[in-house]
Amino acid sequence: MTDTVICGTIGLDDIKTPFGIKKATLGGSVVYSAFASSFFKKPGIVSIAGKDLSKENLALLSRVDLAGLSFGKKTFRWQGVYEYNMNEAKTLKTELNSLAGFSPNLPPSYKNARFLLLANIDPEIQLKILKQVNPKALVLIDSMNFWIENKKEALKSVIKKADIVLFNDAEAREFFNTPNLIRAGRELLNLGPEYAIIKKGEHGALLFSYDRFFSAPGYPLEVLKDPTGAGDSFAGGLIGYLSCSDKINEAQIRKGIIYGSVIASFCTEGLGLENLIKIKLKDIKERYEVMRQIREF
Amino acid sequence: MTDTVICGTIGLDDIKTPFGIKKATLGGSVVYSAFASSFFKKPGIVSIAGKDLSKENLALLSRVDLAGLSFGKKTFRWQGVYEYNMNEAKTLKTELNSLAGFSPNLPPSYKNARFLLLANIDPEIQLKILKQVNPKALVLIDSMNFWIENKKEALKSVIKKADIVLFNDAEAREFFNTPNLIRAGRELLNLGPEYAIIKKGEHGALLFSYDRFFSAPGYPLEVLKDPTGAGDSFAGGLIGYLSCSDKINEAQIRKGIIYGSVIASFCTEGLGLENLIKIKLKDIKERYEVMRQIREF
Repeated sequence: MTDTVICGTIGLDDIKTPFGIKKATLGGSVVYSAFASSFFKKPGIVSIAGKDLSKENLALLSRVDLAGLSFGKKTFRWQGVYEYNMNEAKTLKTELNSLAGFSPNLPPSYKNARFLLLANIDPEIQLKILKQVNPKALVLIDSMNFWIENKKEALKSVIKKADIVLFNDAEAREFFNTPNLIRAGRELLNLGPEYAIIKKGEHGALLFSYDRFFSAPGYPLEVLKDPTGAGDSFAGGLIGYLSCSDKINEAQIRKGIIYGSVIASFCTEGLGLENLIKIKLKDIKERYEVMRQIREF
Repeated sequence: MTDTVICGTIGLDDIKTPFGIKKATLGGSVVYSAFASSFFKKPGIVSIAGKDLSKENLALLSRVDLAGLSFGKKTFRWQGVYEYNMNEAKTLKTELNSLAGFSPNLPPSYKNARFLLLANIDPEIQLKILKQVNPKALVLIDSMNFWIENKKEALKSVIKKADIVLFNDAEAREFFNTPNLIRAGRELLNLGPEYAIIKKGEHGALLFSYDRFFSAPGYPLEVLKDPTGAGDSFAGGLIGYLSCSDKINEAQIRKGIIYGSVIASFCTEGLGLENLIKIKLKDIKERYEVMRQIREF
């Protein structure tokens, strides 16, 4: 039985940053999230790829359970470029390919999962997964600006059903039309979830709950090579840590956020997945300790 | 004898923010810094005002020692406006008035000060103060983008002589022509000071030293009415706290940064000086405890 299920996209990405270029490299929200989560427990993924996925890429995916993976003709393609300030990817091209018309089916072995991460994907697909999963599962949802701009009502429906909702800073500001992240976080809670998290990249992350607030530092990096997948890694690291916790409470979510931040920091130090493939849990734990030291006063 | 000396500008400011308007209100870097510092110990200021300063404004200044204050004809004037996102003031008008040609003279009672804050002012004036002060004084310097753009070499000379240098994020990026604040912080240390601090507004602050790094959270505010003087209050709060410490080390500077952040948070919740006039040390200590709680994991 698979305890942690992650739904999102699988893609072949063309990435260009000031530090290098990757062509048709394995990516997508479910891949980064599941890799990050796999440091704690092997997750299952729900997604669709294409028959063009190479043996090497399938071999990379062996660290996750593939019972929920289906195959269409061609894999989703994304082409993005990061400029000098590395803040946001400029999408040059998107080809939905097999993602178009994807209707997810949860395999029987996933139905009793206790942890569900709905990583970035069409919120209508996220809603379909929610109808199939164990209603007692802890649900985390992540999204992106594209869905705020194009399917805001469906996205709101997903948020209402989630326990923990994740946005990045730009998305939170856009969703609630405010420059103030503290207000955006409070408004996110008003939509229904018990916890709201705003990821701020180099500036760390904020956690909001009914009567508590947490501010996580960013891991200090002098070189940031490629932000692709950082937000997905953050979400995956968080659900991975929680899936190994005895109970889920605000204190555990704080720790999970630090693990997510640390894994995201490794992610951005390599192009595409290259760093997530290399690192070990030991490396993650070392940076977790650094995060303790840098916030003591 | 005055133990803490702060040099900077005194101004009459016209401030416009989405939350209100203040006309000809007492401001300037030395005023905000000295008010923030005065919660710990009465500081002395070195600055110049004009004979147009009202009795009410002089009464406000009674919380600081005025032995180093001289008077010209007219007080420095600044007119600024903050737009929707409140990130940066747009300067509409500056009239130097008595600040033009100001050559500071340290009164005898300030010569043995142990703490010197060179708040934002022409770096050539900062250098003149440095020549007059106790060479064993702990020197903090603050500046602004205008001097980076117009007197970078003089500013570098000041930084070389400082123990602690403060920049905000935009200034640090501009000074070293890098989007990466961690790199900018390291490069600041290379110029000579023992400590470098980068203030990041809502995102907190970073402290760099030879082998240590500290990331301070921002105090969570839903309403930010006026950022004027926030950076100055931060610097003043920091030196104020340090002036009451038994010894100066990295651990004490971390605490001082939290005090500075908290006082700056109060500052931004009011227009101009209005909040700094109202609050008490008890209010500051309460927020200091909140800062502890929000960064625990």
